[in-house]
Amino acid sequence: MDNILIREIQESDLEKGFLECLDNLKIASDLGKDNAKTILKKILDDPNHIIHIAELDGKIVGSTTLLIEQKFIHKGGIVGHIEDVVVREGFERKQIGGKLVESLLEIAKNRGCYKTILDCKDDVKEFYEKIGFKHESNCMRFDH
Amino acid sequence: MDNILIREIQESDLEKGFLECLDNLKIASDLGKDNAKTILKKILDDPNHIIHIAELDGKIVGSTTLLIEQKFIHKGGIVGHIEDVVVREGFERKQIGGKLVESLLEIAKNRGCYKTILDCKDDVKEFYEKIGFKHESNCMRFDH
Repeated sequence: MDNILIREIQESDLEKGFLECLDNLKIASDLGKDNAKTILKKILDDPNHIIHIAELDGKIVGSTTLLIEQKFIHKGGIVGHIEDVVVREGFERKQIGGKLVESLLEIAKNRGCYKTILDCKDDVKEFYEKIGFKHESNCMRFDH
Repeated sequence: MDNILIREIQESDLEKGFLECLDNLKIASDLGKDNAKTILKKILDDPNHIIHIAELDGKIVGSTTLLIEQKFIHKGGIVGHIEDVVVREGFERKQIGGKLVESLLEIAKNRGCYKTILDCKDDVKEFYEKIGFKHESNCMRFDH
């Protein structure tokens, strides 16, 4: 897996199976490429919304999102939020997820974040603990 | 508490004790008004970053933040993230926090969010459960 490339997403990744890669988290390929293009444009225009992808032999095999939040507390501190860590079906357990998360932690650090948080189920808690995350609190959900 | 006003933040709220209100969450008044003004301008320019405040007799007595996240999954679904729920010292237990959270849930619903999430410690879990939140997962933290 040495030839894996981690980088920011670009429009042409929609032709390289980006949505199909997300399917391993929640179905996304039913969105359609035109809708996906519109959404991606909005995201690329927002400096506080960063998506990193993993590419292997011209195919998207992983993706993760970082949201950057400006606060007033912590002397105007900045917080990173990691979302939607996904590895393509069939490419799990090859450290792709870990590399993606670490690449976004680097971005968060460079943007001046004092902390980065994420929400995860119990079964992947240990995965994040190995990277250096610690249990902080409860994630609560409200369905509209 | 009938005369409490819940609304979006505006610059003049910095003169009405907005930062001092945040102090009850984490010290914020040491930021200085000029820095706070710069930060608030950035936030007001970002349609995906909404702060609601509670005003009582010309004083800010509560504040809460909503971040709007566009996803690809869930057919291009939108998720709300509630952050920094705070009630001014001396004004707790008067349902100000609940009103603020509910006002942001309304915004999230109007923006098309299918869910809104937040992270909280065990001691306020019941407060959010009463509003309709359910435990979803673990919030994990990485310190930079």
